[in-house]
Amino acid sequence: MRKVLITGFEPFGGEAINPALEAVMALDGQSLNGGEIVVCSVPVVRYAAIDTVIAAIEQHQPDVVITVGQAAGRAAITPERVAINVDDYRIADNGGHQPVDEPVIADGPAAYFSTLPVKAITHVLQEEGIPAQVSNTAGTFVCNHLFYGVQHYLCNRSVGNHHVRHGFVHIPLLPQQAVQGTQPSMSLATIVQGLTLVAQACLDYEQDAMITAGCEC
Amino acid sequence: MRKVLITGFEPFGGEAINPALEAVMALDGQSLNGGEIVVCSVPVVRYAAIDTVIAAIEQHQPDVVITVGQAAGRAAITPERVAINVDDYRIADNGGHQPVDEPVIADGPAAYFSTLPVKAITHVLQEEGIPAQVSNTAGTFVCNHLFYGVQHYLCNRSVGNHHVRHGFVHIPLLPQQAVQGTQPSMSLATIVQGLTLVAQACLDYEQDAMITAGCEC
Amino acid sequence: MRKVLITGFEPFGGEAINPALEAVMALDGQSLNGGEIVVCSVPVVRYAAIDTVIAAIEQHQPDVVITVGQAAGRAAITPERVAINVDDYRIADNGGHQPVDEPVIADGPAAYFSTLPVKAITHVLQEEGIPAQVSNTAGTFVCNHLFYGVQHYLCNRSVGNHHVRHGFVHIPLLPQQAVQGTQPSMSLATIVQGLTLVAQACLDYEQDAMITAGCEC
Amino acid sequence: MRKVLITGFEPFGGEAINPALEAVMALDGQSLNGGEIVVCSVPVVRYAAIDTVIAAIEQHQPDVVITVGQAAGRAAITPERVAINVDDYRIADNGGHQPVDEPVIADGPAAYFSTLPVKAITHVLQEEGIPAQVSNTAGTFVCNHLFYGVQHYLCNRSVGNHHVRHGFVHIPLLPQQAVQGTQPSMSLATIVQGLTLVAQACLDYEQDAMITAGCEC
Repeated sequence: MRKVLITGFEPFGGEAINPALEAVMALDGQSLNGGEIVVCSVPVVRYAAIDTVIAAIEQHQPDVVITVGQAAGRAAITPERVAINVDDYRIADNGGHQPVDEPVIADGPAAYFSTLPVKAITHVLQEEGIPAQVSNTAGTFVCNHLFYGVQHYLCNRSVGNHHVRHGFVHIPLLPQQAVQGTQPSMSLATIVQGLTLVAQACLDYEQDAMITAGCEC
Repeated sequence: MRKVLITGFEPFGGEAINPALEAVMALDGQSLNGGEIVVCSVPVVRYAAIDTVIAAIEQHQPDVVITVGQAAGRAAITPERVAINVDDYRIADNGGHQPVDEPVIADGPAAYFSTLPVKAITHVLQEEGIPAQVSNTAGTFVCNHLFYGVQHYLCNRSVGNHHVRHGFVHIPLLPQQAVQGTQPSMSLATIVQGLTLVAQACLDYEQDAMITAGCEC
Repeated sequence: MRKVLITGFEPFGGEAINPALEAVMALDGQSLNGGEIVVCSVPVVRYAAIDTVIAAIEQHQPDVVITVGQAAGRAAITPERVAINVDDYRIADNGGHQPVDEPVIADGPAAYFSTLPVKAITHVLQEEGIPAQVSNTAGTFVCNHLFYGVQHYLCNRSVGNHHVRHGFVHIPLLPQQAVQGTQPSMSLATIVQGLTLVAQACLDYEQDAMITAGCEC
Repeated sequence: MRKVLITGFEPFGGEAINPALEAVMALDGQSLNGGEIVVCSVPVVRYAAIDTVIAAIEQHQPDVVITVGQAAGRAAITPERVAINVDDYRIADNGGHQPVDEPVIADGPAAYFSTLPVKAITHVLQEEGIPAQVSNTAGTFVCNHLFYGVQHYLCNRSVGNHHVRHGFVHIPLLPQQAVQGTQPSMSLATIVQGLTLVAQACLDYEQDAMITAGCEC
């Protein structure tokens, strides 16, 4: 049984809920064709976020990791293409940290690409009637921080013959977070359906691609 | 048993579906507290649209009429405040008409206000977690045309002691119409829930307001 | 010598400047082909705004009146098509008034159309390389209030054989009001050039249209 | 006399002009405090763009290089933070190339950061009343391609004791490219003033920072 770990951030920035957390709670234990979904919640706190996901990876030993966060203002599920080595927070995280133009990992490379099949994911979602778009920036807040940090971990650990794909996916606000009508939103049902399709697409792609070894980061 | 007539436009502009039509098909016959919903589909054709809704009003004798159409680019359910006496079509309607700066009704007044409680409707939707906003323009295409034409009919017929409230409500695209991710959308389930709340709010308001006679247009 | 009166609002809503006021100060006394521009500044205060423009009309006896205000979020010079009989202020005006869903003029009609040639104005501006678009809503704040109130005055006074055209034109923020980069702006030079073209187009249209008498409102 | 090389792309995508080219033609030879501006025009053609700018660098031996391109939809001058090693063109470039998910430089790093002081530049522009914002994505078209390729060249050549700062700056459309009013624009005068401020800020920062040697890419 193969495993897809999907992680979701806790609420931040004054919000009472986070669609990513709502979604992963709904996805916990869900069956996939050839696998299952495991989940964890992630604090919106610099470094603690990375440590939490690394611990979940070590616990669950997943084949694929999909880190998920909310992106106010976006109308679609947006797989991120690239994580950059910058922490530049417009607001403080839930731990009170507000770094300006600091690296995520000192002496880390400028960026890591997603190792999820971002185009294939986008295509599958659109085919199923769900708004989707590849994004070229995950911002410079805790979402990008987690994306970069987990990718750095996966690309640098001794992996034996087992490579773990990972990427970050931004999702829209829930309708109840956008009642004023000035920002787009997506229903929880659509988000959950969408992330299930993302997880399945990653499993299917993994099979097709027959990756055998190494880190192509 | 009081009746709320909800009407939905057919697809236009190259779209295969119209969320308004999808919604009214789902709402047909639905029970309300103190009433029920009846529906009709409306051609996106100048004047034929008005005639269709007038025929449905004469058939069903509703207490409230809610005409509904799609508004690409909007992120919320938006009760319209006002209909203006202008037909100025950016594209041809489904009958091939493309009037420029013509009146809907020659010698009609410049505008009619909605007689739905647009602020109360917006408040109820937001309280239930559904994005909503009062809109100050229904555009100058067939949506505004229908809104103006039906309001003109209702305000000018001899009504005896029975006044019928009417207004237009724009709804967002469905997710499957917005798969490229560049426009906001709303799930059909949320739209149907929202329009049910709108219908109930109009019935409840009608009771509260104890309108007895006359057209305040 | 024919006269075009252009009026501009004072700053409001915490802004230190208003592009409309900056523009009219630059336009004061400017020559047109067959006429000249006169201007006045207008307080962002309910009713006082209307009274100020009426006094300027009685003083200058203009052939055309163009009332101008700022519209944050718009990227173009937008001649307004219609004024509606609603005061519904999101923020208080400079006199502390914040009416909710009140009429501008009790027992006034639902709306007045602009009597400026809004399509011709838009065409001239675009031909000269200036972003322009007809707008179908002037909102429900003091801009719409002034537009409605002045049109009501012009359409109801005894006019003899002299009809005065009037309409409202919204302009974008100035660059210095939009330094954060999240809202579009337009340079003062472009706005001044644009409003000069608007004034000239109104004079030229007036000549072409050979309007002789009466109020077509 | 220190030199700032500013490069501007030729028109593409069906446009007759490119604000970047218009701006560099206006900036050619302009004096700065402690330096001067030299310019070159750049074809919107994969690899030819990079080769053109490298040739200009070798000819002029500038202290600072600012590559500039147009970004439809943006309302501000946006210094880019990072170039990524991806060519993924939504439309063909002027040479007919339309790569999908190819690297700019095979075996190049995932990304290069701008070595311009993007925050200081943004601050100076905003202080002078010009809309500005740091951007975290230069897209995946020829703008990003050039940014990445020039940075790769500068970071890999043997530089002796002389380091050349370089970054990409996106600018809005000109008003005449946005006459429909649906996209923000910026006047050429404001863009030219803005890029002059950018060039001066880079020279001043260079002095302050007293960079002595090496490539911190």
